[in-house]
Amino acid sequence: MTERQQDSRALAHPDADGIRLEGVLHALSDPVRLNIVRTLAADGAEMACSAFALPVSKSTTTHHFRVLRESGVIRQVYRGTAKLNLVRRTELDALFPGLLDAVLAAAEAEAGRRP
Amino acid sequence: MTERQQDSRALAHPDADGIRLEGVLHALSDPVRLNIVRTLAADGAEMACSAFALPVSKSTTTHHFRVLRESGVIRQVYRGTAKLNLVRRTELDALFPGLLDAVLAAAEAEAGRRP
Repeated sequence: MTERQQDSRALAHPDADGIRLEGVLHALSDPVRLNIVRTLAADGAEMACSAFALPVSKSTTTHHFRVLRESGVIRQVYRGTAKLNLVRRTELDALFPGLLDAVLAAAEAEAGRRP
Repeated sequence: MTERQQDSRALAHPDADGIRLEGVLHALSDPVRLNIVRTLAADGAEMACSAFALPVSKSTTTHHFRVLRESGVIRQVYRGTAKLNLVRRTELDALFPGLLDAVLAAAEAEAGRRP
């Protein structure tokens, strides 16, 4: 169940009804992906993939962003040559109230435990 | 980092410091495991593995309980021939305040969405 693609470069996203809790939890269960989401949520604005300095290869980075997009955690749009990313906070908060904030707080707590 | 085993039948559990957010989210990202945790949390008491009628084989059931135990989500103890299970709520709530409740509420919301 994906939204109608508007042009050949539009990326497939689940609509809100297609976002599954298990998929969201799986997407957030990887440290690199969780780190991406923390950064995006803290920033609150669209960020290009290239803005992330991740300790993994470019293709692995692309994979992680795709998992986040396909699970419904982030929205990705092309702007020129850049792929911009944004957390789907409004939709996630509507579907699963408090979940994203609890995960982000837990990630913060864990980062504090393991500096 | 596991607690000292008290006898040959004691099962290995991470101590609180060994519980990782990623491991907890991964453990909860499977529908069967999430269902087990919902049932245990709703009951609030120890439940035997055999009390769960799961749509998977016995060996898969054992695997799911092991993932939950090794990630720190549940505690498993032998009592006679039964293996009893309990959510490690106090420790999880101390480590990641609100997380378990948010996941359980989200699971409830999702079950309501897909009856």
